[in-house]
Formats: sequence, C-alpha cells, structure tokens
Amino acid sequence: MLKNPFFADMADTRKKLVPIESVPTKTDIEQSHELIAPYIHKTPILSSRYLNELIGCEVFFKCENFQKIGAFKMRGASNAALRLPAESLQNGLATHSSGNHAAALALTAKNLKIPSYIVMPSSAPKIKKEAVKHYGGQIIECIPTLEAREATLNELVIKTGAQFVHPFDNYSVIGGQATVAKELVEELPDLDAIFAPVGGGGLLSGTALSAHYFSSGTAVYGGEPLGANDAWESLNKGQLIPVKNPKTIADGLLTSLSTKTFHLIKSHVREIVVTEEKMIVYAMRLIWERMKILIEPSSAVALAALLNKKTAFKGKKIGIILSGGNVDLDQFKFSA
Amino acid sequence: MLKNPFFADMADTRKKLVPIESVPTKTDIEQSHELIAPYIHKTPILSSRYLNELIGCEVFFKCENFQKIGAFKMRGASNAALRLPAESLQNGLATHSSGNHAAALALTAKNLKIPSYIVMPSSAPKIKKEAVKHYGGQIIECIPTLEAREATLNELVIKTGAQFVHPFDNYSVIGGQATVAKELVEELPDLDAIFAPVGGGGLLSGTALSAHYFSSGTAVYGGEPLGANDAWESLNKGQLIPVKNPKTIADGLLTSLSTKTFHLIKSHVREIVVTEEKMIVYAMRLIWERMKILIEPSSAVALAALLNKKTAFKGKKIGIILSGGNVDLDQFKFSA
Repeated sequence: MLKNPFFADMADTRKKLVPIESVPTKTDIEQSHELIAPYIHKTPILSSRYLNELIGCEVFFKCENFQKIGAFKMRGASNAALRLPAESLQNGLATHSSGNHAAALALTAKNLKIPSYIVMPSSAPKIKKEAVKHYGGQIIECIPTLEAREATLNELVIKTGAQFVHPFDNYSVIGGQATVAKELVEELPDLDAIFAPVGGGGLLSGTALSAHYFSSGTAVYGGEPLGANDAWESLNKGQLIPVKNPKTIADGLLTSLSTKTFHLIKSHVREIVVTEEKMIVYAMRLIWERMKILIEPSSAVALAALLNKKTAFKGKKIGIILSGGNVDLDQFKFSA
Repeated sequence: MLKNPFFADMADTRKKLVPIESVPTKTDIEQSHELIAPYIHKTPILSSRYLNELIGCEVFFKCENFQKIGAFKMRGASNAALRLPAESLQNGLATHSSGNHAAALALTAKNLKIPSYIVMPSSAPKIKKEAVKHYGGQIIECIPTLEAREATLNELVIKTGAQFVHPFDNYSVIGGQATVAKELVEELPDLDAIFAPVGGGGLLSGTALSAHYFSSGTAVYGGEPLGANDAWESLNKGQLIPVKNPKTIADGLLTSLSTKTFHLIKSHVREIVVTEEKMIVYAMRLIWERMKILIEPSSAVALAALLNKKTAFKGKKIGIILSGGNVDLDQFKFSA
C-alpha cells in the first residue's frame, strides 16, 4: 500500500506528528492546521447588511457548509487519521455516526486509499447513507440505540483491525475542529464573541481553545437546542448529565457532551445559550432567504442563540460558525 | 433634491451618459459597467467537482443569486435609471412587474432618494410585495392580466410624472444585464459556451452581446422551460410569437420576448434549448444539495439545458448564469 504515491507522500508528514493525547496546545492546533490543509477548504466568511441591521451588530458567518463533505467534521476526522502511524492505518478507519462525521471519515479513508467501516442506525436518513457510500465507506447497520452502536462497533474493530475515530471524544478531532475558529480570528482579529452550536462538543471545545490561544479578547458562546440541552444542564450542575430522549430539528446536536468536551467547555466557554425550536427555524430561514446559502438546522442554532441575546451584543462584532449544509431536501416539495 | 450629497455626486457621472437608444455597443456596455459599479456586487464564480464529474465538463457558475436584491435585475434597473437626466428623475421611477425587476427598481429609486411606483398583480406572492415595500417602493395593485398592468401603469405615469423603466424591452436595461457575462468572460476568457435562462430575454440578449464583444469564441445558449417556450418557437418560425398560458415552476420566465430582445437573440444566440419541468427541479436540487447555495427555479433552467445537451459539451468549459436566488420558502415546511 505504501507504493501508492499519494500515501507515500503522506507518510513523511505523518511521521512528524502523533495523536494528540491531552488538551491540544497552541502548537498542536497550528500543526493540525498545516497537516490537514491539503484535505480541507479554507471556507469563506460572509456577512449580510440586512442581518446586521436586524440584529443590531456586525455579524460574520464562517461558512463550513462550503467545507468538503458539507461540514466542519472533515477537519477533525482528517486530523485524527493523519496523525495515526501508517502501519496502524492499514486495516482502515471505523466509527459510529449517522451524520457528518461518518461522511468525513469515509472521505478521509478514501483520500488515504484505505477502507472505512461506518456503523449507522437502520433509521438513518437515506441521504446520509448515500453520502457515506459515495465516498466508498462500508455501512454496517444496527438498531438505533447507543448500546447497539457501540457493541456493533466493538465487534467490527476486533474483526477488521480498523482504527476507531470517535466523533468528538478525541483530542486530535478537537484539535482539527479548532482550526475553524483559528481561520476566523486570523481573518478577523477583533471579534468580541464567537457563537458555535454544541452537540457532542467537539466544535465548541475547539472553538474555545482557538479563541483562548489566538484571540484572547474573544468570548465564546455555545448555542444549544432546548430539546437537547445537556451542555447547559451539565454546566449548571457542574457535572456531566447526558440528555435523555433528545428531540430537535437540529439533528446534528442530539448527542451529549463527553468527558473531554465537558471539561474544555467548562474551562473556556462563557455561556451556553439555550434556544427554542421556533427560533432555530426562524434563524435558518433568515440565512436561507437573506444570504442565499443552504445551512442545516444545527448551524442555525448559533444564530438563534445570538438572536436570543441580541440586546447584550448591540454594536459588537460577532463571529458565527455555520457548521454544515447537509439538509435532507426530501422533506421539501419541489414542483411546478 | 440635488442638495443631497449622494444625489449631487451622481449628477456628475450621469451628465456624461444618456439612455442607450439602439443595440448597445461594446463601449456602451463598458460604460454601463463603470456607471453601475457602485450599486452592484461583483458576484463570485463557483464550481463543484462533483457536478463537473456528473456532467463531464468544467462548469463555472456566475452567482447572481448573491447580487443585490438577490438577482441580476439590479444591473439593468440601475443602468437605466442612472442614464436618465436628473430633472426627469425627480418624479420617481415606475414599472409593472411581479418579480425581481420590481425590487431592483425600488432599491435603485431608494439609492437615488426618489420615489418608486410598482404596479403588481393582486395575485403576486406576499414575499415579492414585501421585498418592494422593504426598499421603499409604493405598490399599486391591479387584476392579474397584462392589459390591466399596462393600463394601470399608464394612468400612474400620467398622474405622477414618474419615468417608466421596462423590465427588458429597453436597451439601457439590456446593456446593464450584459455586465454579468462581461464579468464572467473577463475572469474566464476561454469559455466554450455560456448558458443563460430566457424569459423576456433581457439577460440572454445582454449575455450574447457581451460574448460577441468580449469573448468571440464563446457560443451563447438560452435555456427555456417547455411550458413557456416562446423564444424557441419564435426563433423556429422566424417571427415573434408570444406565449399563451405559460406554466412553469420557473416563475421568472413566464414572460415573452419583446421586439428588441427577439432580434438580438436571433442574431447572437446559438440555440434555445427547451427543458421539461422535471429536469428544472432536478437541476435546482443538484445546485442546492451539492453547492449549498439557494437559487430560484428560473436559475436552474440554464443548468437543466446543459444537462439536456451534455454529450455535445463533453470536456468543454462552460459558464452558467445563475440569475437569482429569490425562492418563496413558504412552500416548504420547516419544523422539528
């Protein structure tokens, strides 16, 4: 396999870097950014005069909906994979996910010319399964419970020898997601605050770390749906409390924080702002209609959180991370 | 009124240019571009590896969905208004339109701090009326027939003294729309072909003129819905044949060619490619899903036309004009 020229090129770079085993340092994030640069887009930052007037502050949208596979997850997945030693990659990559991390890991494996195995609940939308297949990932279906997902994955890893890459409870993944905010504050060094959505917390943790290292005057806020508000509850109670029966249109935010992301968010995030479904839908429509870009509901949660607190940010300069653009358009009727 | 600093500044520029009274020359289009530059965006050109692979050629999308008011119409409306003598503008601008030209004329009038009067059929979608109101336009409703629209407009012009700006049968408007393709070929001088949608024909005429003047090796094709195929029929029969009872999801393309646009298209457009509704919807979804940008159905007609003829363009370099992004999202259900 090392005869493949692409893979051989990579081996050189990878040799220098190893998986991140504790809270990513400033250098870890800088090195991660260099490492993944060939596999990601530097996404554009857009703004809208109409939205600025409506909200009463200057808002800058970091558009990860234009990222490869349509979401920021490409950053973390490629950082984690590229840091693994070449010999341990030979049997491929594996994960359980019904969403964007699945597609990101499948594309990363494709880039590295190795197999990928994705455990998905049988209930996952057809479009998500098709994305994984499109990138050459092998789907292993299981019943839609966390226990079944973990058990199926464990069996799979034993059987295939593939490397498991957790969607967020992994410091290399967090270090990769941190590059979104790094790009944002490098282009806009004087942001008063950044809002990012929070599900498992990989993006929010990374965002908070990058603000801390690269733009210490920028406060970081998490936006969370009321129907899946475990981050808000965990921070309030001071301990990790997973969400039971989450329900929200923001299908990327149904997961709960992990130990790693809980501690990072506790240390570096100013506040978790909870938002109702109505506000999420309103924020999503605003962005579709006014900016003419497609974002998924999870992305709209960050803007919804800012809208909830807009009086506190009057006249400020705010970054919003639009995490992805993978909407299931089957739910819409398109006809004459 | 001339005391307004914005308006006074403009008077200088406007003095030099007059309405374009015959087929726009190369110089007319160059001067139009300079004249309108402060009032328009230079829109981005995007591409998608996935779509290139699917279609089998290199496709470059000129994104007028990101234009001010969400459509290319801002170019023609501002060119026409800015070329009128200051004294004749004092009573404002008027038009009949249920679509993007209405919003473009209202915003142009707002920029010039003069009133605008828009005759709209009572059946026009709420969202279109709101856009006009948002830019300060006064809406005059009439029953939804072409006769009623024209009669209401005539009365209005007599009563107010406002200047009528036709949405496409106007050489200044055509000269403004020509700046879309001018920007496209300036950035990509070696396009084999450009596809643009055709309704009244202002955009397609202007596109054909700009290709002719600025990139003579680039052929221009029009995409037209089968349910409103008057351009195709008129070119085939060699005479202007207006469409009766047009029906298509591409609501910007319901109008028929005018004398001016018919003659320009006859002289400079290679072919009108007719497309069925199914292909328009498919093309629109492709762009939404793969490029994560919102376009209106009329914009999708150009890609649909290319898809119909893709074997003829294998390996070629093609420009597609995405005319606008004003979709009525009320037709979609957004909920958890």
